[in-house]
This record gives sequence, C-alpha cells and structure tokens, in this order.
Amino acid sequence: MDKNSSIDNLIYIFSKLPGLGPRSARRIVLHLLEDKESRIQLIIDSLADSIEKIKFCNICFNLDSSDPCIICTDETRDNSSIAIVENIGDLWALERSGSYKGKYHVLGSSLNASNNNKPTDLKLDKLVERIKNSEIKEVIIATNSTLDGQTTAFYITEFLKDLDIKISRLASGIPVGGELDYLDEGTLSAALSLRQPF
Amino acid sequence: MDKNSSIDNLIYIFSKLPGLGPRSARRIVLHLLEDKESRIQLIIDSLADSIEKIKFCNICFNLDSSDPCIICTDETRDNSSIAIVENIGDLWALERSGSYKGKYHVLGSSLNASNNNKPTDLKLDKLVERIKNSEIKEVIIATNSTLDGQTTAFYITEFLKDLDIKISRLASGIPVGGELDYLDEGTLSAALSLRQPF
Repeated sequence: MDKNSSIDNLIYIFSKLPGLGPRSARRIVLHLLEDKESRIQLIIDSLADSIEKIKFCNICFNLDSSDPCIICTDETRDNSSIAIVENIGDLWALERSGSYKGKYHVLGSSLNASNNNKPTDLKLDKLVERIKNSEIKEVIIATNSTLDGQTTAFYITEFLKDLDIKISRLASGIPVGGELDYLDEGTLSAALSLRQPF
Repeated sequence: MDKNSSIDNLIYIFSKLPGLGPRSARRIVLHLLEDKESRIQLIIDSLADSIEKIKFCNICFNLDSSDPCIICTDETRDNSSIAIVENIGDLWALERSGSYKGKYHVLGSSLNASNNNKPTDLKLDKLVERIKNSEIKEVIIATNSTLDGQTTAFYITEFLKDLDIKISRLASGIPVGGELDYLDEGTLSAALSLRQPF
C-alpha cells in the first residue's frame, strides 16, 4: 500500500507513539477507518479539546485544565510536604496509590549525561523559592530507582541541603507481592540492609 | 486525576483502541501532552485528512483515497483472479507479501453465530455479479484459518459452486521458519496429510 499516502501517513504517525510499532499502528488505523465518521471524529474532538484546555501548572509543573492545577489549589491537601517526581506519569502513579496527600514538584526530566539533561532543566530554583515562601517542612524525593533517578536524587539533596527542611526519599525494598527468587541482587541487598524491626 | 475530564477523556478514548489499555493509553496521552502544539496538531491534521479522503472502494471494498481503489484500477494486475479476504488488514498482509498480483474482494466480516454475522453481510451478490461481468477465472479463498474463517470459506464455496470458475484456498501447513515442537496438533496433522512430493 505504498501509494496510499493518507493511510500510510496516519499509520506512520501512530507507529511513532510510545509503545506502538507498525503492526499495532496498522491495527488501530484500520479500526478507526472502519467507522471513520464516528471514531475518528471522536478522537479529533477530544485531542482538540485537550490542546485548548490542558496546560502546565505554573507552580508544580503538573498538567491540568487549570493553572494552578487542581492539586496545588486543593485546600484539603497537606501544604507542608512536597514530593519531587521525575515526570507527570510518576505523579499520576502516586495519585493512584491514594497514599500521598501533599503537593508535588514535577522535574520534567532527570539528570543524564547521555542526553545532555542539565541541572537547570529541573526547575530547582523555582522549588527553592516555593519552599522559602511557604510552610513546607518536608521534601520527599520520589525519583525513579534507576541510575538517572538516583543521580538526580543526590543532586537535589545537595542542592537543598542548606534549607531548614526534612529531606526524605521513597523506601527501597521488595515490592509487595514480590517473590525473592525473581528479584535482582540489588533489590535483595537493599531490602536486607534496610531491614525493619518486626 | 479523577477530576480532570479533558485528560481522562482522552486517556479513555485511547484505551479503547485495539491493543491498548489504560496504562498504554496514559503513556501515549502524556507523550502527546508534553509537546501538544506540535504532536497533537499533527495527529489531528492527519486524522482529518483521512476522514476527508479515505473511502471504501465500491468494487472490492478496500479502503483507499480513490474509489475504485488503486488495486482495482491497476491495469498491470491480473484481472482473472480474485482473492477473498475477511478484512482489509488481511488484504494489506497479502500485499506486503508481494506474492499476489490479482484483485480482491473484502468480505468485511466472517460468519459467526455468536456475533450474529449473516451471510448477507459478506456482499457475495456483488462478488457474483463481478465474476459474471468480467474475465475472472479463479477465486482464491483467503479467509483466516480459524473456525469462523473456515465456516465462511465453506459457505462461499457453496455459494459460488454453480459458476464456471476455479475455486481454491490458501494452503495449510507449517509456517516458514516454524519449529515442529512448537506447533499445535491441527497444523501438524494438516501438514502431514497435505504433504508434497520433494
């Protein structure tokens, strides 16, 4: 179907979305074209709606249909704690867990020598300003437990060390439901050295 | 993020596409929103283009930006043979193989008691009319090798039996590159009973 540029173009664009490839993109595009008036129009309308409404929150850099976002403006949330996450997907994951009721700071990236991310990309000046001008007592560093995430965590800890706040990070250990036999050595040795009283 | 209807709506719509679920849809939507002006607009433009341009071919029921489609109007293709496929994805698969140079008839569905597909959905009257008014000599039934596909194949064979044409179907057997140890019994017994002289 090389000569059909409209369909090929659509498949190409979908195949570049994260997690998709040519085969899954073809399947999606066929599904859409089979009932294009309703299915495609629905997606177009929803995408157009999101272009218009969704923006970055100027305080925590979350994405939301209001700026400041619904989390920053929520008076019932704990104003004394900020969780620092690498990206909005991580923020959503913490929100789904339902176990965190404080505010956030979304870095938008992590420190990584290979893709030239710089410390200034992390918007830490904005974070320091926020901490100084508010009642923040604790910063929870919730970066990923990857090399980049840990590098970023150490950098942030260093950056914030002169402020009069508690700095903590998410616990390392065995995932709930995890079996020891299937875990890597790093996780096991962390779980062992950080063992807790029963 | 229950309260954010624009993002949630977009995630929901993507999660209903074939092969995607809530998690992959979230990842795609986040990717799009991170650079929404360019990424989302690109998809909207491409979808709008396809709504406007892509239509079903009135002869073979392929999807294309012209009607009749590029395959039906291609004078270099063999006019004496029609391959009957269940859907356009199957047509694309045969085209990718590069080994078929005839015309097509896309059924659009298969016979299936559970989802109430009726023989009239297969547009076979249109096919018979096409065969009678042209130089068709062979019909290749290229339905899937599933229960539905085989039921459909038998029905079509019966439907076309009074016409003076050759009716054939795709060979069953071991997929090229396949290992016997990993194949199901049905495939192996088909490969054995349809064995060919060396």
